[in-house]
Amino acid sequence: MLKHARSLQQKKFRDESGEFLVQGAKVVGELLTSGWGVSALLATEAMAARPEFSHAEVVSPHELDRVGTLESGNELIAVVRKPVRGPLSDLRDDELVIALDGITDPGNLGTVLRIADWFGFERVWCSVGSVDAYNPKCVQASMGAIFRVQVQQVDLPVVLARQQECGAVLYMASMEGSSVFAERLACKAVLVMGSESHGISTEVRALQGRSISIPGKGGSESLNVAMATSALCMEFARQRMR
Amino acid sequence: MLKHARSLQQKKFRDESGEFLVQGAKVVGELLTSGWGVSALLATEAMAARPEFSHAEVVSPHELDRVGTLESGNELIAVVRKPVRGPLSDLRDDELVIALDGITDPGNLGTVLRIADWFGFERVWCSVGSVDAYNPKCVQASMGAIFRVQVQQVDLPVVLARQQECGAVLYMASMEGSSVFAERLACKAVLVMGSESHGISTEVRALQGRSISIPGKGGSESLNVAMATSALCMEFARQRMR
Repeated sequence: MLKHARSLQQKKFRDESGEFLVQGAKVVGELLTSGWGVSALLATEAMAARPEFSHAEVVSPHELDRVGTLESGNELIAVVRKPVRGPLSDLRDDELVIALDGITDPGNLGTVLRIADWFGFERVWCSVGSVDAYNPKCVQASMGAIFRVQVQQVDLPVVLARQQECGAVLYMASMEGSSVFAERLACKAVLVMGSESHGISTEVRALQGRSISIPGKGGSESLNVAMATSALCMEFARQRMR
Repeated sequence: MLKHARSLQQKKFRDESGEFLVQGAKVVGELLTSGWGVSALLATEAMAARPEFSHAEVVSPHELDRVGTLESGNELIAVVRKPVRGPLSDLRDDELVIALDGITDPGNLGTVLRIADWFGFERVWCSVGSVDAYNPKCVQASMGAIFRVQVQQVDLPVVLARQQECGAVLYMASMEGSSVFAERLACKAVLVMGSESHGISTEVRALQGRSISIPGKGGSESLNVAMATSALCMEFARQRMR
Protein backbone atom coordinates (compact mmCIF):
# COMPACT_ATOMS: atom_id res chain seq x y z
CA MET A 1 0.00 0.00 0.00
CA LEU A 2 2.81 2.46 0.80
CA LYS A 3 4.38 2.06 -2.61
CA HIS A 4 0.98 2.42 -4.28
CA ALA A 5 0.14 5.48 -2.18
CA ARG A 6 3.43 7.10 -3.08
CA SER A 7 2.82 6.47 -6.79
CA LEU A 8 -0.33 8.62 -6.59
CA GLN A 9 1.85 11.71 -6.49
CA GLN A 10 1.99 11.18 -10.26
CA LYS A 11 -0.94 11.73 -12.61
CA LYS A 12 -0.16 8.59 -14.60
CA PHE A 13 -0.79 6.36 -11.59
CA ARG A 14 -3.81 8.37 -10.46
CA ASP A 15 -5.32 7.83 -13.90
CA GLU A 16 -4.50 4.12 -13.89
CA SER A 17 -5.82 3.37 -10.42
CA GLY A 18 -8.60 5.92 -10.15
CA GLU A 19 -7.26 6.93 -6.74
CA PHE A 20 -5.64 10.06 -5.30
CA LEU A 21 -4.13 11.44 -2.09
CA VAL A 22 -5.73 13.62 0.56
CA GLN A 23 -3.46 14.98 3.28
CA GLY A 24 -3.56 16.67 6.65
CA ALA A 25 -6.08 16.73 9.48
CA LYS A 26 -8.14 19.59 8.03
CA VAL A 27 -8.75 18.19 4.55
CA VAL A 28 -8.92 14.55 5.67
CA GLY A 29 -11.48 15.69 8.22
CA GLU A 30 -13.58 17.11 5.39
CA LEU A 31 -13.04 13.92 3.40
CA LEU A 32 -14.40 11.72 6.17
CA THR A 33 -17.67 13.64 6.25
CA SER A 34 -17.98 13.64 2.45
CA GLY A 35 -18.92 10.02 1.85
CA TRP A 36 -16.10 9.57 -0.68
CA GLY A 37 -14.51 6.11 -0.74
CA VAL A 38 -11.35 5.82 1.34
CA SER A 39 -9.05 2.92 0.39
CA ALA A 40 -6.49 3.57 3.10
CA LEU A 41 -5.80 5.98 5.91
CA LEU A 42 -2.18 6.29 7.06
CA ALA A 43 -1.20 8.22 10.16
CA THR A 44 1.47 8.89 12.72
CA GLU A 45 0.85 7.41 16.12
CA ALA A 46 -0.16 10.85 17.43
CA MET A 47 -2.70 11.38 14.67
CA ALA A 48 -4.17 7.91 15.07
CA ALA A 49 -4.67 8.72 18.76
CA ARG A 50 -7.29 11.30 17.80
CA PRO A 51 -10.77 9.74 18.04
CA GLU A 52 -11.77 10.84 14.52
CA PHE A 53 -8.74 9.12 12.99
CA SER A 54 -8.59 6.12 15.30
CA HIS A 55 -9.24 3.70 12.43
CA ALA A 56 -6.04 4.84 10.66
CA GLU A 57 -3.11 2.52 10.07
CA VAL A 58 -0.07 3.71 12.01
CA VAL A 59 2.98 4.27 9.84
CA SER A 60 6.41 5.65 10.69
CA PRO A 61 7.01 9.40 10.12
CA HIS A 62 9.76 8.51 7.67
CA GLU A 63 7.41 6.45 5.53
CA LEU A 64 4.71 9.11 5.68
CA ASP A 65 7.24 11.66 4.47
CA ARG A 66 7.92 9.47 1.46
CA VAL A 67 4.22 9.17 0.58
CA GLY A 68 3.12 12.73 1.35
CA THR A 69 3.83 15.89 -0.60
CA LEU A 70 3.46 18.55 2.08
CA GLU A 71 6.55 20.56 2.96
CA SER A 72 6.03 19.75 6.59
CA GLY A 73 3.54 17.81 8.63
CA ASN A 74 3.02 14.62 6.60
CA GLU A 75 1.16 13.10 9.50
CA LEU A 76 -2.09 11.91 7.97
CA ILE A 77 -2.65 10.70 4.42
CA ALA A 78 -5.69 9.10 2.84
CA VAL A 79 -5.84 7.14 -0.39
CA VAL A 80 -9.20 8.01 -1.91
CA ARG A 81 -11.19 6.70 -4.87
CA LYS A 82 -12.11 9.32 -7.45
CA PRO A 83 -15.85 9.67 -7.91
CA VAL A 84 -17.37 8.32 -11.11
CA ARG A 85 -19.22 11.13 -12.86
CA GLY A 86 -22.26 10.35 -15.00
CA PRO A 87 -22.72 11.93 -18.42
CA LEU A 88 -22.68 15.72 -18.36
CA SER A 89 -26.12 17.18 -17.76
CA ASP A 90 -27.22 20.45 -19.32
CA LEU A 91 -27.34 23.59 -17.20
CA ARG A 92 -30.39 24.17 -15.07
CA ASP A 93 -32.19 27.45 -15.73
CA ASP A 94 -30.66 29.12 -12.69
CA GLU A 95 -27.23 27.53 -12.82
CA LEU A 96 -23.86 29.24 -13.16
CA VAL A 97 -20.95 26.98 -14.12
CA ILE A 98 -17.32 28.12 -14.01
CA ALA A 99 -15.27 26.93 -16.99
CA LEU A 100 -11.47 27.06 -16.94
CA ASP A 101 -9.77 27.08 -20.31
CA GLY A 102 -6.21 25.78 -20.00
CA ILE A 103 -5.56 26.32 -16.30
CA THR A 104 -2.10 24.94 -15.47
CA ASP A 105 -1.43 25.86 -11.85
CA PRO A 106 -2.89 23.32 -9.39
CA GLY A 107 -2.98 25.89 -6.58
CA ASN A 108 -5.08 28.20 -8.70
CA LEU A 109 -7.47 25.40 -9.65
CA GLY A 110 -7.89 24.42 -6.00
CA THR A 111 -8.53 28.04 -5.11
CA VAL A 112 -11.17 28.34 -7.83
CA LEU A 113 -12.91 25.26 -6.40
CA ARG A 114 -12.92 26.93 -3.02
CA ILE A 115 -14.44 30.09 -4.52
CA ALA A 116 -17.11 28.08 -6.37
CA ASP A 117 -17.92 26.26 -3.15
CA TRP A 118 -18.22 29.51 -1.21
CA PHE A 119 -20.62 31.09 -3.70
CA GLY A 120 -22.60 27.88 -4.12
CA PHE A 121 -21.71 27.22 -7.76
CA GLU A 122 -21.82 23.44 -8.01
CA ARG A 123 -19.80 22.64 -11.12
CA VAL A 124 -16.41 23.59 -12.52
CA TRP A 125 -15.40 22.45 -16.01
CA CYS A 126 -11.77 22.30 -17.10
CA SER A 127 -10.59 22.01 -20.69
CA VAL A 128 -8.71 18.89 -21.76
CA GLY A 129 -5.06 19.55 -21.05
CA SER A 130 -5.76 21.49 -17.87
CA VAL A 131 -3.94 20.48 -14.71
CA ASP A 132 -5.43 17.40 -13.03
CA ALA A 133 -7.87 18.36 -10.29
CA TYR A 134 -6.64 15.37 -8.25
CA ASN A 135 -3.10 16.75 -8.20
CA PRO A 136 -2.15 16.87 -4.48
CA LYS A 137 -1.53 20.64 -4.62
CA CYS A 138 -4.99 21.23 -6.04
CA VAL A 139 -6.64 18.96 -3.48
CA GLN A 140 -4.90 20.76 -0.62
CA ALA A 141 -5.57 24.26 -2.00
CA SER A 142 -9.26 23.41 -2.33
CA MET A 143 -9.40 22.92 1.45
CA GLY A 144 -12.03 20.24 0.94
CA ALA A 145 -14.08 22.06 -1.70
CA ILE A 146 -13.12 19.27 -4.12
CA PHE A 147 -15.50 16.97 -2.21
CA ARG A 148 -18.41 19.36 -2.75
CA VAL A 149 -17.88 21.03 -6.12
CA GLN A 150 -18.13 18.73 -9.15
CA VAL A 151 -14.97 19.36 -11.13
CA GLN A 152 -14.60 17.62 -14.46
CA GLN A 153 -12.39 17.76 -17.54
CA VAL A 154 -14.52 18.19 -20.66
CA ASP A 155 -14.08 18.94 -24.35
CA LEU A 156 -14.70 22.60 -23.59
CA PRO A 157 -15.50 24.03 -27.06
CA VAL A 158 -17.99 21.23 -27.72
CA VAL A 159 -19.62 21.40 -24.31
CA LEU A 160 -19.88 25.20 -24.35
CA ALA A 161 -21.40 25.21 -27.84
CA ARG A 162 -23.99 22.71 -26.64
CA GLN A 163 -24.87 24.83 -23.59
CA GLN A 164 -25.15 27.90 -25.77
CA GLU A 165 -27.67 26.06 -27.95
CA CYS A 166 -29.59 25.22 -24.80
CA GLY A 167 -29.87 28.90 -23.96
CA ALA A 168 -26.95 29.47 -21.61
CA VAL A 169 -25.00 32.70 -22.02
CA LEU A 170 -21.23 32.33 -22.19
CA TYR A 171 -19.33 35.09 -20.39
CA MET A 172 -15.68 35.27 -21.37
CA ALA A 173 -13.40 37.07 -18.92
CA SER A 174 -11.07 39.29 -20.90
CA MET A 175 -9.02 42.42 -20.36
CA GLU A 176 -10.70 43.88 -23.44
CA GLY A 177 -14.26 43.01 -22.42
CA SER A 178 -16.89 45.51 -21.40
CA SER A 179 -17.29 46.22 -17.69
CA VAL A 180 -19.18 43.46 -15.95
CA PHE A 181 -20.93 46.17 -13.93
CA ALA A 182 -22.66 47.32 -17.11
CA GLU A 183 -24.02 43.83 -17.85
CA ARG A 184 -27.32 42.43 -16.79
CA LEU A 185 -25.98 38.94 -16.20
CA ALA A 186 -28.07 35.95 -17.25
CA CYS A 187 -28.95 33.36 -14.59
CA LYS A 188 -28.23 30.42 -16.88
CA ALA A 189 -24.63 31.12 -17.64
CA VAL A 190 -21.09 29.85 -17.95
CA LEU A 191 -18.25 32.04 -16.72
CA VAL A 192 -15.21 31.21 -18.85
CA MET A 193 -11.77 32.06 -17.43
CA GLY A 194 -8.68 31.79 -19.61
CA SER A 195 -5.29 30.40 -18.75
CA GLU A 196 -2.80 32.43 -16.73
CA SER A 197 -0.52 33.00 -19.69
CA HIS A 198 -2.54 32.54 -22.87
CA GLY A 199 -6.05 33.71 -22.05
CA ILE A 200 -9.04 32.00 -23.63
CA SER A 201 -8.31 29.62 -26.55
CA THR A 202 -9.19 30.41 -30.15
CA GLU A 203 -11.75 27.59 -30.27
CA VAL A 204 -13.63 28.89 -27.27
CA ARG A 205 -13.41 32.52 -28.37
CA ALA A 206 -14.94 31.47 -31.69
CA LEU A 207 -18.18 30.76 -29.82
CA GLN A 208 -18.60 34.51 -29.50
CA GLY A 209 -19.82 34.76 -25.95
CA ARG A 210 -20.13 38.07 -24.09
CA SER A 211 -16.70 39.44 -23.29
CA ILE A 212 -16.60 40.90 -19.78
CA SER A 213 -13.89 42.59 -17.72
CA ILE A 214 -13.22 43.71 -14.19
CA PRO A 215 -12.89 47.50 -14.21
CA GLY A 216 -9.53 48.54 -12.85
CA LYS A 217 -7.01 51.26 -13.24
CA GLY A 218 -4.01 49.36 -11.95
CA GLY A 219 -0.68 48.81 -13.62
CA SER A 220 0.00 46.70 -16.66
CA GLU A 221 -0.48 43.44 -14.85
CA SER A 222 -3.82 41.65 -14.82
CA LEU A 223 -5.27 39.91 -11.80
CA ASN A 224 -4.44 36.22 -11.66
CA VAL A 225 -7.13 33.71 -12.52
CA ALA A 226 -8.14 32.97 -8.92
CA MET A 227 -8.45 36.64 -7.91
CA ALA A 228 -10.34 37.43 -11.09
CA THR A 229 -12.70 34.50 -10.53
CA SER A 230 -13.35 35.68 -6.98
CA ALA A 231 -14.12 39.23 -8.15
CA LEU A 232 -16.39 38.12 -11.00
CA CYS A 233 -18.23 35.55 -8.86
CA MET A 234 -18.93 38.37 -6.41
CA GLU A 235 -20.76 40.32 -9.11
CA PHE A 236 -22.59 37.23 -10.39
CA ALA A 237 -23.64 36.48 -6.80
CA ARG A 238 -24.84 40.05 -6.28
CA GLN A 239 -26.95 40.13 -9.40
CA ARG A 240 -28.41 36.69 -8.69
CA MET A 241 -29.64 37.87 -5.32
CA ARG A 242 -31.78 40.61 -6.78
CA MET B 1 28.01 42.68 -2.75
CA LEU B 2 27.05 39.01 -3.25
CA LYS B 3 27.24 38.28 0.45
CA HIS B 4 25.25 41.42 1.25
CA ALA B 5 22.66 40.57 -1.41
CA ARG B 6 22.27 37.09 -0.02
CA SER B 7 21.78 38.44 3.50
CA LEU B 8 18.70 40.33 2.29
CA GLN B 9 16.77 37.06 2.22
CA GLN B 10 16.46 37.71 5.97
CA LYS B 11 14.32 40.43 7.50
CA LYS B 12 16.97 41.36 10.05
CA PHE B 13 19.41 42.40 7.33
CA ARG B 14 16.71 44.11 5.27
CA ASP B 15 15.84 46.18 8.33
CA GLU B 16 19.49 47.02 9.04
CA SER B 17 20.42 48.01 5.51
CA GLY B 18 17.14 49.37 4.24
CA GLU B 19 17.48 47.25 1.13
CA PHE B 20 15.65 44.27 -0.35
CA LEU B 21 15.71 41.86 -3.30
CA VAL B 22 13.74 41.99 -6.53
CA GLN B 23 14.01 38.99 -8.83
CA GLY B 24 13.23 37.86 -12.36
CA ALA B 25 12.81 39.67 -15.65
CA LYS B 26 9.14 40.51 -15.13
CA VAL B 27 9.38 42.16 -11.72
CA VAL B 28 12.82 43.69 -12.29
CA GLY B 29 11.41 45.14 -15.51
CA GLU B 30 8.68 46.83 -13.46
CA LEU B 31 11.29 47.97 -10.97
CA LEU B 32 13.37 49.72 -13.61
CA THR B 33 10.39 51.81 -14.73
CA SER B 34 9.44 52.65 -11.13
CA GLY B 35 12.16 55.10 -10.26
CA TRP B 36 13.09 53.16 -7.11
CA GLY B 37 16.78 53.22 -6.19
CA VAL B 38 18.71 50.20 -7.41
CA SER B 39 22.00 49.50 -5.58
CA ALA B 40 23.02 46.55 -7.71
CA LEU B 41 21.74 44.49 -10.59
CA LEU B 42 23.13 40.95 -10.94
CA ALA B 43 22.46 38.81 -13.99
CA THR B 44 23.47 35.76 -15.95
CA GLU B 45 25.32 36.44 -19.17
CA ALA B 46 22.15 35.69 -21.14
CA MET B 47 20.08 38.15 -19.12
CA ALA B 48 22.71 40.87 -19.35
CA ALA B 49 22.62 40.43 -23.13
CA ARG B 50 19.08 41.82 -23.15
CA PRO B 51 19.18 45.54 -23.96
CA GLU B 52 17.05 46.52 -20.96
CA PHE B 53 19.39 44.74 -18.54
CA SER B 54 22.67 45.53 -20.30
CA HIS B 55 23.91 47.56 -17.34
CA ALA B 56 23.74 44.50 -15.07
CA GLU B 57 26.82 42.95 -13.51
CA VAL B 58 27.37 39.44 -14.87
CA VAL B 59 27.55 36.80 -12.15
CA SER B 60 27.80 33.01 -12.40
CA PRO B 61 24.56 30.99 -12.27
CA HIS B 62 25.85 29.25 -9.17
CA GLU B 63 26.32 32.54 -7.34
CA LEU B 64 22.92 33.81 -8.47
CA ASP B 65 21.34 30.65 -7.10
CA ARG B 66 22.88 31.42 -3.73
CA VAL B 67 21.55 34.97 -3.69
CA GLY B 68 18.12 34.33 -5.18
CA THR B 69 15.11 32.66 -3.59
CA LEU B 70 13.19 31.47 -6.63
CA GLU B 71 12.78 27.73 -7.07
CA SER B 72 14.11 27.99 -10.58
CA GLY B 73 15.38 30.74 -12.82
CA ASN B 74 17.57 32.84 -10.51
CA GLU B 75 18.88 34.75 -13.52
CA LEU B 76 18.33 38.37 -12.61
CA ILE B 77 18.41 39.90 -9.14
CA ALA B 78 18.30 43.53 -8.07
CA VAL B 79 19.28 44.97 -4.71
CA VAL B 80 16.87 47.82 -4.12
CA ARG B 81 16.60 50.59 -1.54
CA LYS B 82 13.34 50.69 0.36
CA PRO B 83 11.47 53.95 -0.07
CA VAL B 84 11.37 56.35 2.85
CA ARG B 85 7.74 57.06 3.68
CA GLY B 86 6.78 60.40 5.17
CA PRO B 87 4.43 60.68 8.14
CA LEU B 88 1.07 59.04 7.55
CA SER B 89 -1.42 61.42 5.98
CA ASP B 90 -5.12 61.25 6.76
CA LEU B 91 -7.50 59.73 4.25
CA ARG B 92 -8.72 61.90 1.43
CA ASP B 93 -12.50 62.22 1.17
CA ASP B 94 -12.72 59.70 -1.65
CA GLU B 95 -10.01 57.31 -0.50
CA LEU B 96 -10.30 53.64 0.34
CA VAL B 97 -7.38 52.12 2.24
CA ILE B 98 -6.99 48.38 2.79
CA ALA B 99 -5.80 47.48 6.30
CA LEU B 100 -4.44 44.02 7.07
CA ASP B 101 -4.55 42.99 10.70
CA GLY B 102 -1.95 40.31 11.41
CA ILE B 103 -1.34 38.96 7.92
CA THR B 104 1.41 36.34 8.09
CA ASP B 105 1.66 34.81 4.62
CA PRO B 106 3.93 36.81 2.30
CA GLY B 107 2.24 35.40 -0.80
CA ASN B 108 -1.13 36.61 0.44
CA LEU B 109 0.26 40.07 1.21
CA GLY B 110 1.79 40.33 -2.26
CA THR B 111 -1.51 39.24 -3.78
CA VAL B 112 -3.41 41.87 -1.80
CA LEU B 113 -0.99 44.53 -3.10
CA ARG B 114 -1.75 43.35 -6.63
CA ILE B 115 -5.49 43.58 -5.97
CA ALA B 116 -5.14 47.08 -4.51
CA ASP B 117 -3.10 48.11 -7.55
CA TRP B 118 -5.68 46.73 -9.95
CA PHE B 119 -8.57 48.55 -8.31
CA GLY B 120 -6.57 51.74 -7.90
CA PHE B 121 -6.44 51.76 -4.09
CA GLU B 122 -3.17 53.48 -3.33
CA ARG B 123 -2.40 52.49 0.25
CA VAL B 124 -2.24 49.25 2.22
CA TRP B 125 -1.61 49.35 5.96
CA CYS B 126 -0.33 46.32 7.86
CA SER B 127 -0.41 45.92 11.61
CA VAL B 128 2.84 45.73 13.54
CA GLY B 129 3.83 42.07 13.59
CA SER B 130 2.54 41.39 10.08
CA VAL B 131 4.87 39.74 7.61
CA ASP B 132 7.44 42.12 6.09
CA ALA B 133 6.25 43.49 2.74
CA TYR B 134 9.85 43.36 1.50
CA ASN B 135 9.99 39.61 2.05
CA PRO B 136 11.08 38.16 -1.33
CA LYS B 137 7.92 36.03 -1.60
CA CYS B 138 5.74 39.09 -1.10
CA VAL B 139 7.71 41.17 -3.61
CA GLN B 140 7.41 38.44 -6.24
CA ALA B 141 3.70 37.74 -5.56
CA SER B 142 2.97 41.45 -5.96
CA MET B 143 4.20 41.22 -9.57
CA GLY B 144 5.48 44.78 -9.29
CA ALA B 145 2.47 46.23 -7.46
CA ILE B 146 4.79 46.90 -4.51
CA PHE B 147 6.34 49.73 -6.55
CA ARG B 148 2.97 51.40 -7.03
CA VAL B 149 0.93 50.71 -3.90
CA GLN B 150 2.21 52.36 -0.72
CA VAL B 151 2.43 49.55 1.80
CA GLN B 152 3.35 50.45 5.35
CA GLN B 153 3.39 48.88 8.81
CA VAL B 154 1.49 51.03 11.26
CA ASP B 155 0.14 50.89 14.79
CA LEU B 156 -3.19 49.77 13.40
CA PRO B 157 -5.56 50.39 16.34
CA VAL B 158 -4.15 53.91 16.83
CA VAL B 159 -4.18 54.80 13.16
CA LEU B 160 -7.68 53.43 12.59
CA ALA B 161 -9.05 55.30 15.61
CA ARG B 162 -7.55 58.50 14.23
CA GLN B 163 -9.09 57.93 10.79
CA GLN B 164 -12.44 57.20 12.37
CA GLU B 165 -12.25 60.55 14.18
CA CYS B 166 -11.54 62.14 10.81
CA GLY B 167 -14.75 60.73 9.41
CA ALA B 168 -13.61 57.54 7.74
CA VAL B 169 -15.85 54.50 8.12
CA LEU B 170 -14.10 51.30 9.17
CA TYR B 171 -15.44 48.17 7.48
CA MET B 172 -14.41 44.98 9.21
CA ALA B 173 -14.58 41.81 7.12
CA SER B 174 -16.11 39.08 9.23
CA MET B 175 -17.99 35.83 8.70
CA GLU B 176 -20.63 37.18 11.09
CA GLY B 177 -21.02 40.58 9.43
CA SER B 178 -24.06 41.71 7.49
CA SER B 179 -24.02 41.24 3.74
CA VAL B 180 -21.86 43.84 2.02
CA PHE B 181 -24.51 43.97 -0.71
CA ALA B 182 -26.92 45.49 1.78
CA GLU B 183 -24.49 48.27 2.72
CA ARG B 184 -24.29 51.69 1.16
CA LEU B 185 -20.50 51.88 1.39
CA ALA B 186 -18.86 55.16 2.35
CA CYS B 187 -16.29 56.65 -0.03
CA LYS B 188 -13.89 57.59 2.76
CA ALA B 189 -13.29 54.18 4.19
CA VAL B 190 -10.87 51.60 5.49
CA LEU B 191 -11.46 47.96 4.62
CA VAL B 192 -10.02 45.89 7.47
CA MET B 193 -9.15 42.26 6.76
CA GLY B 194 -8.19 39.93 9.60
CA SER B 195 -5.45 37.36 9.72
CA GLU B 196 -5.87 33.98 8.06
CA SER B 197 -6.16 32.15 11.34
CA HIS B 198 -7.25 34.59 14.02
CA GLY B 199 -9.45 37.14 12.25
CA ILE B 200 -9.43 40.76 13.37
CA SER B 201 -7.69 41.54 16.66
CA THR B 202 -9.54 42.52 19.82
CA GLU B 203 -8.02 46.03 19.78
CA VAL B 204 -9.25 46.73 16.27
CA ARG B 205 -12.65 45.15 16.86
CA ALA B 206 -13.04 47.45 19.87
CA LEU B 207 -13.24 50.38 17.45
CA GLN B 208 -16.69 49.12 16.49
CA GLY B 209 -16.59 49.58 12.76
CA ARG B 210 -19.24 48.16 10.45
CA SER B 211 -18.97 44.40 10.24
CA ILE B 212 -19.44 43.19 6.66
CA SER B 213 -19.44 39.75 5.05
CA ILE B 214 -19.40 38.14 1.63
CA PRO B 215 -22.65 36.26 1.20
CA GLY B 216 -22.01 32.61 0.49
CA LYS B 217 -23.55 29.24 1.03
CA GLY B 218 -20.40 27.19 0.73
CA GLY B 219 -18.97 24.70 3.14
CA SER B 220 -17.55 25.43 6.54
CA GLU B 221 -14.39 26.94 5.17
CA SER B 222 -14.05 30.70 4.66
CA LEU B 223 -12.37 32.29 1.67
CA ASN B 224 -8.72 33.09 2.26
CA VAL B 225 -7.70 36.69 2.86
CA ALA B 226 -6.63 37.36 -0.74
CA MET B 227 -9.79 35.94 -2.31
CA ALA B 228 -11.97 37.76 0.21
CA THR B 229 -10.13 41.02 -0.43
CA SER B 230 -10.63 40.60 -4.17
CA ALA B 231 -14.36 39.95 -3.74
CA LEU B 232 -14.89 42.87 -1.33
CA CYS B 233 -12.81 45.29 -3.43
CA MET B 234 -15.04 44.37 -6.36
CA GLU B 235 -18.11 45.57 -4.47
CA PHE B 236 -16.35 48.70 -3.20
CA ALA B 237 -15.28 49.44 -6.78
CA ARG B 238 -18.79 48.94 -8.08
CA GLN B 239 -20.40 51.23 -5.55
CA ARG B 240 -17.72 53.89 -6.07
CA MET B 241 -18.50 53.99 -9.78
CA ARG B 242 -22.11 54.91 -9.24
